[in-house]
Amino acid sequence: MIIDLIAAVEFLKNNDEYLILTHAHPDGDTLGCAFALCEALLSFGKKAAVRCSDPIPSKYGYMGATGEGDVDFKKVIAVDVADTKLLGKDFEKSYGDRIDLCIDHHGSNRLYADKTLLDPTAAAACEIILAVIRELGVNVTKTIANNIFTGLSTDSGCFRYSNVTPRTLRMAADMIEAGAEHTKINTAMFETKTRTYVALERLALESMKMYLDERCAFITITQDMFKESGSDESEVDAIAAIPRQIEGVLVGVTMREKADGTFKVSMRSHEGVDVSAICAMLGGGGHPRAAGCTVSGDVQTARNTVVLSIEKYFEKSSV
Amino acid sequence: MIIDLIAAVEFLKNNDEYLILTHAHPDGDTLGCAFALCEALLSFGKKAAVRCSDPIPSKYGYMGATGEGDVDFKKVIAVDVADTKLLGKDFEKSYGDRIDLCIDHHGSNRLYADKTLLDPTAAAACEIILAVIRELGVNVTKTIANNIFTGLSTDSGCFRYSNVTPRTLRMAADMIEAGAEHTKINTAMFETKTRTYVALERLALESMKMYLDERCAFITITQDMFKESGSDESEVDAIAAIPRQIEGVLVGVTMREKADGTFKVSMRSHEGVDVSAICAMLGGGGHPRAAGCTVSGDVQTARNTVVLSIEKYFEKSSV
Repeated sequence: MIIDLIAAVEFLKNNDEYLILTHAHPDGDTLGCAFALCEALLSFGKKAAVRCSDPIPSKYGYMGATGEGDVDFKKVIAVDVADTKLLGKDFEKSYGDRIDLCIDHHGSNRLYADKTLLDPTAAAACEIILAVIRELGVNVTKTIANNIFTGLSTDSGCFRYSNVTPRTLRMAADMIEAGAEHTKINTAMFETKTRTYVALERLALESMKMYLDERCAFITITQDMFKESGSDESEVDAIAAIPRQIEGVLVGVTMREKADGTFKVSMRSHEGVDVSAICAMLGGGGHPRAAGCTVSGDVQTARNTVVLSIEKYFEKSSV
Repeated sequence: MIIDLIAAVEFLKNNDEYLILTHAHPDGDTLGCAFALCEALLSFGKKAAVRCSDPIPSKYGYMGATGEGDVDFKKVIAVDVADTKLLGKDFEKSYGDRIDLCIDHHGSNRLYADKTLLDPTAAAACEIILAVIRELGVNVTKTIANNIFTGLSTDSGCFRYSNVTPRTLRMAADMIEAGAEHTKINTAMFETKTRTYVALERLALESMKMYLDERCAFITITQDMFKESGSDESEVDAIAAIPRQIEGVLVGVTMREKADGTFKVSMRSHEGVDVSAICAMLGGGGHPRAAGCTVSGDVQTARNTVVLSIEKYFEKSSV
């Protein structure tokens, strides 16, 4: 059932002992949502803990710590999670059919929860969480401000993408006033590259190929390139932004080889091309400007599969 | 004489026939200031025109057009210009000693103008111009909004740098509401790389050397590299952000060889290191986190000169 802000806050006020779940491979937005909401519920006098099926990357270490061992809980909340399969395999099995409340900004949300608070106009799910916290009447502490700011900033490419609205910017301004360390956060998220990342980026640039009359730029990252650079999968996300940046490119693709030999595909587009539709053809999903899917086969076959789907989309929508 | 906002607006109301000057090698902030102020003065019923000693790069083409030929004017205004020598050689000669009003955000402003409206806490000089326009009581049109937004966004690395304040973000939000095409502007300024730029970036990454216990990353771009990549000086600015991004680096330097054989140095730092002080030792200047200078000699000598100055600064300030 889709519910509104007031109903979501009523639910939070009327229940207790919350387990808050992020999506697997956690990013700044899902973690910002979870830790900000957890802190707000605690200061409202509730019990709450955050869990994630994957370890939290060290660069997000300042945001908070997940509960350990067994947590006493009565209600399960999922934040920034569009589909139960994004919880991670084990978590999906344990919690997938018993999510009481989902707070999300993905238009593709599968409405798996008992109640869903959904706002696809939010650049980050943290925008919705901040509205919830304000409606709860809880003071925005420095910890909450840092968490919300991280979500706003990371999901909008530091306020660069088309999803940014005046609300996003004003909330960011409010968070800075509430103590968010925006310089530290932005530096850590956007202005810090490891030497191994720089080495991987160089190899990625060398791998770039152009398709479909140069309207598609395609980066391929193999396991060998991880070895050569000393980098790993955790550093690929930033590279995914690169191919779309090439002048004239409508769809940028970054395909990385996983340890099991399959390929994880990240697709980015400019306005007018809905990559969530293209990735849906390949069993994936996401946002109109940023989506993903997984493909199999050898590198050549996998690349052809992806390029053919993009071509099909271009033809169908006369791009 | 330093004046306040009210006095600056009084000056604009009480005079007429304005020539508005940007700095040479114009960027988004100086152009945003000039075209927004020009439009505001025109709609206030004044005569005004913008001039720049250099051609305006095509990516800023949407911002406005400079006046051509001789402009009838009585008062000269310089925007985002810290020093008359930044006007460009000919313009400095023609106007350097007769600037009536300077509106600027550089702490290093040399106070060359008769009246100076200065706010070094502004991330972009466009913040001050917007305050002036509001005080004038002029309606913020879409053209003004696009120009102000461009200045705010480009001078703050798209709201990423430490100079960003709540005011910067709120003004950006207001400009979007006033019609600024933020997605189009951010895409053009930050998300568009030419193929020649990508080729130059690859060569730049290969040239990167580390100094001073890896606290200084140093990129050198030679005339040969411009030839090999098909790129040119106009594309170097974005590269200047790269060396500071390496983990552990306190000062990032990008040194490009000019056609006359001298080297233009762009320095970027993290909090705690004032690169405007380092560049001042070499006859340059700028902001604490972003500054520049020019050095001579062969590539080796020039690099040593720069690295030695950084080392000297590190020792003096116990970095």
